[in-house]
Amino acid sequence: MEFEENGIGEECGVFGCVAAGEWPTQLDVAQILTLGLVALQHRGQESAGIVTSNGACPPTYTSSKGMGLVSSAFKAEDLMKHRYANLGIGHTRYSTTGNSELQNCQPFVVDTLHGKIAVAHNGELVNAAALRKKVMRHGVGLSTSSDSELITQLLALTPPMEEVDVADWVARIKNLMSETPTAYSLLVMYKDVVYAVRDPYGNRPLSLGRLVPVSKFHSSGGGEGDTEGWVVSSESCSFQSIGAKYYREVQPGEIVQINKHGVKTLSVVPRPEGDPPAFCIFEYVYFARPDSIFEGQMVYTVRQRCGRQLAIEAPTDCDVVSTVPESATPAALGYAQQSGLPYVEVLCKNRYVGRTFIQPNTHLRQLGVAKKFGVLSDNFAGKRVVLIDDSIVRGNTISPIIKLLKEAGATEVHIRVASPPIRFPCYMGINIPTKEELIANKPEFEDIAGYIGATSVRYLSVEGLVSAVQAGISSHQDKEERITNANTTSSRKVGHCTACLTGKYPVELEW
Amino acid sequence: MEFEENGIGEECGVFGCVAAGEWPTQLDVAQILTLGLVALQHRGQESAGIVTSNGACPPTYTSSKGMGLVSSAFKAEDLMKHRYANLGIGHTRYSTTGNSELQNCQPFVVDTLHGKIAVAHNGELVNAAALRKKVMRHGVGLSTSSDSELITQLLALTPPMEEVDVADWVARIKNLMSETPTAYSLLVMYKDVVYAVRDPYGNRPLSLGRLVPVSKFHSSGGGEGDTEGWVVSSESCSFQSIGAKYYREVQPGEIVQINKHGVKTLSVVPRPEGDPPAFCIFEYVYFARPDSIFEGQMVYTVRQRCGRQLAIEAPTDCDVVSTVPESATPAALGYAQQSGLPYVEVLCKNRYVGRTFIQPNTHLRQLGVAKKFGVLSDNFAGKRVVLIDDSIVRGNTISPIIKLLKEAGATEVHIRVASPPIRFPCYMGINIPTKEELIANKPEFEDIAGYIGATSVRYLSVEGLVSAVQAGISSHQDKEERITNANTTSSRKVGHCTACLTGKYPVELEW
Amino acid sequence: MEFEENGIGEECGVFGCVAAGEWPTQLDVAQILTLGLVALQHRGQESAGIVTSNGACPPTYTSSKGMGLVSSAFKAEDLMKHRYANLGIGHTRYSTTGNSELQNCQPFVVDTLHGKIAVAHNGELVNAAALRKKVMRHGVGLSTSSDSELITQLLALTPPMEEVDVADWVARIKNLMSETPTAYSLLVMYKDVVYAVRDPYGNRPLSLGRLVPVSKFHSSGGGEGDTEGWVVSSESCSFQSIGAKYYREVQPGEIVQINKHGVKTLSVVPRPEGDPPAFCIFEYVYFARPDSIFEGQMVYTVRQRCGRQLAIEAPTDCDVVSTVPESATPAALGYAQQSGLPYVEVLCKNRYVGRTFIQPNTHLRQLGVAKKFGVLSDNFAGKRVVLIDDSIVRGNTISPIIKLLKEAGATEVHIRVASPPIRFPCYMGINIPTKEELIANKPEFEDIAGYIGATSVRYLSVEGLVSAVQAGISSHQDKEERITNANTTSSRKVGHCTACLTGKYPVELEW
Amino acid sequence: MEFEENGIGEECGVFGCVAAGEWPTQLDVAQILTLGLVALQHRGQESAGIVTSNGACPPTYTSSKGMGLVSSAFKAEDLMKHRYANLGIGHTRYSTTGNSELQNCQPFVVDTLHGKIAVAHNGELVNAAALRKKVMRHGVGLSTSSDSELITQLLALTPPMEEVDVADWVARIKNLMSETPTAYSLLVMYKDVVYAVRDPYGNRPLSLGRLVPVSKFHSSGGGEGDTEGWVVSSESCSFQSIGAKYYREVQPGEIVQINKHGVKTLSVVPRPEGDPPAFCIFEYVYFARPDSIFEGQMVYTVRQRCGRQLAIEAPTDCDVVSTVPESATPAALGYAQQSGLPYVEVLCKNRYVGRTFIQPNTHLRQLGVAKKFGVLSDNFAGKRVVLIDDSIVRGNTISPIIKLLKEAGATEVHIRVASPPIRFPCYMGINIPTKEELIANKPEFEDIAGYIGATSVRYLSVEGLVSAVQAGISSHQDKEERITNANTTSSRKVGHCTACLTGKYPVELEW
Repeated sequence: MEFEENGIGEECGVFGCVAAGEWPTQLDVAQILTLGLVALQHRGQESAGIVTSNGACPPTYTSSKGMGLVSSAFKAEDLMKHRYANLGIGHTRYSTTGNSELQNCQPFVVDTLHGKIAVAHNGELVNAAALRKKVMRHGVGLSTSSDSELITQLLALTPPMEEVDVADWVARIKNLMSETPTAYSLLVMYKDVVYAVRDPYGNRPLSLGRLVPVSKFHSSGGGEGDTEGWVVSSESCSFQSIGAKYYREVQPGEIVQINKHGVKTLSVVPRPEGDPPAFCIFEYVYFARPDSIFEGQMVYTVRQRCGRQLAIEAPTDCDVVSTVPESATPAALGYAQQSGLPYVEVLCKNRYVGRTFIQPNTHLRQLGVAKKFGVLSDNFAGKRVVLIDDSIVRGNTISPIIKLLKEAGATEVHIRVASPPIRFPCYMGINIPTKEELIANKPEFEDIAGYIGATSVRYLSVEGLVSAVQAGISSHQDKEERITNANTTSSRKVGHCTACLTGKYPVELEW
Repeated sequence: MEFEENGIGEECGVFGCVAAGEWPTQLDVAQILTLGLVALQHRGQESAGIVTSNGACPPTYTSSKGMGLVSSAFKAEDLMKHRYANLGIGHTRYSTTGNSELQNCQPFVVDTLHGKIAVAHNGELVNAAALRKKVMRHGVGLSTSSDSELITQLLALTPPMEEVDVADWVARIKNLMSETPTAYSLLVMYKDVVYAVRDPYGNRPLSLGRLVPVSKFHSSGGGEGDTEGWVVSSESCSFQSIGAKYYREVQPGEIVQINKHGVKTLSVVPRPEGDPPAFCIFEYVYFARPDSIFEGQMVYTVRQRCGRQLAIEAPTDCDVVSTVPESATPAALGYAQQSGLPYVEVLCKNRYVGRTFIQPNTHLRQLGVAKKFGVLSDNFAGKRVVLIDDSIVRGNTISPIIKLLKEAGATEVHIRVASPPIRFPCYMGINIPTKEELIANKPEFEDIAGYIGATSVRYLSVEGLVSAVQAGISSHQDKEERITNANTTSSRKVGHCTACLTGKYPVELEW
Repeated sequence: MEFEENGIGEECGVFGCVAAGEWPTQLDVAQILTLGLVALQHRGQESAGIVTSNGACPPTYTSSKGMGLVSSAFKAEDLMKHRYANLGIGHTRYSTTGNSELQNCQPFVVDTLHGKIAVAHNGELVNAAALRKKVMRHGVGLSTSSDSELITQLLALTPPMEEVDVADWVARIKNLMSETPTAYSLLVMYKDVVYAVRDPYGNRPLSLGRLVPVSKFHSSGGGEGDTEGWVVSSESCSFQSIGAKYYREVQPGEIVQINKHGVKTLSVVPRPEGDPPAFCIFEYVYFARPDSIFEGQMVYTVRQRCGRQLAIEAPTDCDVVSTVPESATPAALGYAQQSGLPYVEVLCKNRYVGRTFIQPNTHLRQLGVAKKFGVLSDNFAGKRVVLIDDSIVRGNTISPIIKLLKEAGATEVHIRVASPPIRFPCYMGINIPTKEELIANKPEFEDIAGYIGATSVRYLSVEGLVSAVQAGISSHQDKEERITNANTTSSRKVGHCTACLTGKYPVELEW
Repeated sequence: MEFEENGIGEECGVFGCVAAGEWPTQLDVAQILTLGLVALQHRGQESAGIVTSNGACPPTYTSSKGMGLVSSAFKAEDLMKHRYANLGIGHTRYSTTGNSELQNCQPFVVDTLHGKIAVAHNGELVNAAALRKKVMRHGVGLSTSSDSELITQLLALTPPMEEVDVADWVARIKNLMSETPTAYSLLVMYKDVVYAVRDPYGNRPLSLGRLVPVSKFHSSGGGEGDTEGWVVSSESCSFQSIGAKYYREVQPGEIVQINKHGVKTLSVVPRPEGDPPAFCIFEYVYFARPDSIFEGQMVYTVRQRCGRQLAIEAPTDCDVVSTVPESATPAALGYAQQSGLPYVEVLCKNRYVGRTFIQPNTHLRQLGVAKKFGVLSDNFAGKRVVLIDDSIVRGNTISPIIKLLKEAGATEVHIRVASPPIRFPCYMGINIPTKEELIANKPEFEDIAGYIGATSVRYLSVEGLVSAVQAGISSHQDKEERITNANTTSSRKVGHCTACLTGKYPVELEW
């Protein structure tokens, strides 16, 4: 719940679309991008942008950007401008304080000697500071603090523009990947192509989908001959809303070329010998939408499995199991199934509260989250409640909920957290509080139950989380990798980044 | 779900607050009104308004109104204007087409010979047309089509202004009640008093709450000596968010006076001999928030009981029970408990979709609700699903959901509806489609399952609904009525309006 | 200049339009109303509204209202709603503090027993308080403080609605006129007619215009057979911008009926025996646009004549004559012509300043009007300047301008004011500062030149103003009155209200 | 008038401010920048931006940008962010079609190896295309089409960043000036310095001002010891509104360093041997505000002199002289003075028209400028009018005005234009219609009087314009150049760019 309440951990979403077949297309590429971004809105609400191309030679690029939710960032007349689009990429940006300017809004477009490129990026380059210096030493001025601009300038710099006749963007992308190991899922649009790139560690997600005729969407699918276009997205949850079917994930290190002829793997850049992949485990725990598919498994199912594992690791003698809505619900249902305790709802959410501007005075501020939740006291009065949360990060939002439940008659409130305590910062793109703010690093953590007013508190173990995540992967993974004729020699095929839990980062950090 | 999707059945919410003790008060009355309205936002999103009074003699009234959600209707600087408020009333208005003007926004304030009154109203006067004629025949011009203005003019007309020295508002309110039997829950503010009035049939809800010091809110409660103020609201769900405790319902026909000295019943206007009360049964089925309390029982619990009753009346041989989120969830959990079938989630909601402005083209419009829901296929693929919905009104939104589930692998999809079919119009304030639009009145209803693509469809019976609603009432009701020294002679104490289901209206309709 | 700077004296503007010939009309009535109001924008910038009718039986009324300038009050899509309009009326409202609510925005529409009427009003009823009491004693609640609502309710009350079969609006309007002598220029729309009414004293202006085909607009005119429609406006300056030609003024006390068949005088309500008309003399001095025509003469010409008269009454021994732009320019040119002194510009206006939101800090606030004007020092450095202003009311804005001129090298700055000092409040619709705020009533007025830092200060005399105004009227007036078969017995045909200068009000004030 | 009506010729304005004395300053730098830009608003209304620095080491830069007028581009809370500013630069941008994006809004800020620089620019680099290629060949991607970004990247590129220890911005600015001869007036902010740069030809204006204590502003001035800060602006008209006094112009080719210690000339980059300066003559004719001072003379006075010259070159036998308000008024007064004909006003402007959104239908569109002007027919009916305009460019706006005057009774309408016909494009920053659109290049120009419906049409000669401009310069110029110890060897000190009139460009154009 704390992520949800505090905007912790929000990051970014990228989405691309290329119409298949002969152009000009009948697909409304800008609307597909917009709807795709709406389905990724949970990944970032600060700003949104799309850039489309007609794919002609030279191409005409059209751009729409704005602050806030997709629905307020674009106006209907903005979308009209894109009516000749045959392909395009889009981006939703996460919300940080202080740096919220339209000029940081992606996709970033720059003009180069070989024409314009557009870039949308999810992630954070672990060696961004060193790369910025390098670019600036070359005499380039950087107008934003965004990694996306840095990436565009790196792409423009090497190989030297003046020495080449044509723009070999694949060479440029490979060069970029050789300079920075992680974390990035990138979309690069150039003329009539969208390049979809995932870093060698696969830290950020990226999936491919296939647009099928609506008439066949609800049927069993149709062959590839029916393909109306290709989409690529941070999460597969965005496919259904635009009538696309899940195709496969972009593999770690893979460079996929998407154009009107289809999807083609151009290269798979390997990790250093012996390094496992490092897909962010918190995509499973919190960030992703429950209906997204990663590594062949539905996120919802993994969360449910975490709840089951939690019930094994930290059982309770309670009367009912419940959840802090909405993100912890699958884990709570898993806990209920495993423990055999009945699942009930103890809180209902007022979906309008979040939008109110009111700065309550002392009287009202003390009520805390009471404004956000209604208490369903009939369901638990006089009972012992085990409440499942997905994470406790700073520890300041669960406390008033426990008070509410006790005041409404819960005799005991046991907290079970379906993820381990966060103890370390993330340098791969997730907005996590400073080490000092994390409750797990504070003295109060010694008696966390007392601190938040719970009868007891238990977290899922790191091993438990990893096993719950990896239990559903292996067989699928092999199949996917065969699809992408990957000539990688990585010794292991499965692996996840647990740096924020363990302090073990997938690559050595250089500052 | 259909109510939720289509805005069917939205109505209005009223909220009032009076600071207790000596004035000027330290309570931020305008913020309490605002937060109270936010908690009633589900009852109407078209416009919002508050009017406050400093309660002095003569009083100064301050008014803020605006279109849209409470959060956009008022600006922070608007609320500043109310800083001397000691009491006030507020209103959220439901959304109808074509008549969406700020001047219809309530509360309605008029100046009379005896000073200004402010009126907020939830409901619809069944004989509004006749009353409008009467008022206009007297030579009054009516500037809006709202019942609220009509009520203010009726209050001003009788007894004749010129013949009385003082404003006997209770006499005026009683006279109003003698002219119109239902449906109204009214707040009337005059100088330093808020009168809370519920029509003799109790068709619309109205509850009283007591503001307690925040320091004591989470304790077991404190005596009445701790009362910081009184609130009155369409639904008790709004009390928690402003630090108030549920006190009791306003009884059918009751006129309650709320001033700084407390709450007092001035009169209870009886119904005609033999008429039972007629509280709108759809408040239980759909309109109210699940944590609201009516007739001594929590709405959530009633919905759960409806689900249990439905499982008895219309069992299925399925593998899993699920819900169309979010309003049908309690009924689904009740169905699961009664039937013993496991409860799973099959859909997750994209909470951002509703706000998007996009008018999709043909391609995308055909996807229908696919944009609003993610499919959690792992939870039901290869299984028989019984899907609980709270209502099927027009029958046009459940169909694409059934398609989605089948396409994702459900082998059977049985629909169970936790309320009976709606067949008749409502003349008491609920926005229901025309008789012709209601699926229950169409030939297609003969084979409703075939029409919507379900394996089977069953509705809850009227008797089942009524018994599920009334099962939890009686003992409580007696207690409440003793509180309000009601000298009514109504033969029956419990009764609900089921007119939209049965065509039996609580009063004879005169047009 | 002070009026211009401080918004003193703004009032309201009314505008009506009726399409001639067979309906439905091809005229875009809503656009004509909108452009007409834009041309009256100088009379009020707080809010604007239009109400149109299709003129059918029963009619459909359509209404658009909004805060601010006409250009922001209406949106393009608002105007679309009026596409079936055959007639309509509009209003721009002046800006007062504290009472700036959309619900006070005119035209006011009410539903009566005989159907809807719409009213737009410029002026202030001198006996409004007594009339409000009367209406409220009848049991009517008044929802606004506007005279316009009061007028609608008075129209609805008498003769008694219940006793008449048809709505005799002329009888109702005459009854209204019998109850209040001044000040009002009214437009009343009912079904397919606009009634244009001017109070018996003619205190507020009202003129009729004739819409001619654009093809003939620039020709010498065309006969009445070419009439495309009729317009009625507070000022004739609005006619040119919508392609209309000046027809005549509505006479004091006249009730004009405008429908598709043309313009017809229904009645001329006389003044009490011996009372002269009392057209507001400040319409000439400041309020009206210079190209408007009243009583047969152009306002610009009257202002120029005031300047000439001022040169006669208060000559100076200066080198150059100039003006505080823009309203005093005609008077300054008149002064220059009469005195033989050369006319130069000493200030240029920054037209963007007015729109800036900046609340300057101490440093910048002290600069006063320096922000609004550029100084054209070459034109007067080393010279003696006589600066013509149209009025000095509070005396707080001319002072910094004199400083600017002296600092830029003017050796002497003589102020000549083309109107007498304002000493009394207006009860007929003009927003004038309180008696205490008027510089003419303060001790400082003894040495006004010293107070504002001028070398000398002289005002135009009341007699001088009246003669400058009336010099151009008489012959014309006779002609107009013959047109309107006026059976009035008023002893005098010419007369102006100078109450704010002399304290002599046209009617006895009753409070 | 045509410039005014059509937005022809708008360009940009730059403004900078540095607080003098010890920092932190008490000056509200952001408000001074804002007011300064408001006074330059006539130079561009598309967007506005300011960037301030606290001048610390390293500095903190704060930026506010927005679309539209200054008053809508910045919000009050935006300005709060700048409360620690000790220096800053700002920009107003002109309006072109199609490229109106916030990301083109200046000042442009980039991060370089030596820290951030901010650049604001007025003008257009004549060799921009070649320079863009050069920069991109170096591997730099350009994210906008603005010359301002190009300038920042050129400044960053040379001398090579990697080879220098410190940022020698003067060397970098000189290098930039060696690569592009014109047209630019530049402000470059770096840490605690604003560099003010004017191109060697002095094509665009740039002036320095001195902020004095308000207490001394209206006195005769105070010595430099009273200096509170320094400002630099495209036009001196902005000085008065922020309490600054005109100091001097930045000389062609001069690089001025402004910091808290004062103003210092760092270098004066010479023009090629024999080349005269080339200050844009249309700054005098139209662009600049009349109270601005260039080359020691007030713009108003030059325009008046053009009017006098026009009266000599193109006399008429008319009854009255008048103007199309407002920009041609000084020329009209000059014409009147020289010719001895009386000056009258024939048109008054409706200042609200410009803001209205209405897209009139056929009927109303034909009325053309009739909506914008009121006709003061009394002043010219039955007379011969000579109407002075400042320019006729496309020739499509004067025609309906002539019609209006004739229709209102003018017996003859002679047009006299106070500038020569524009025949050639401008490549130095002015938005001029294409060669084909210019009336002077069309066959219709043969009979321009007939084409626009005038009795006769005459333009000022190029020689007449140049002599009217240069008549007031020489003595002053010498004085100024001595102030700025200019070691230039330019043979001539006075010269103006008349390229749009003659086709003779100040530098050879390379494309």
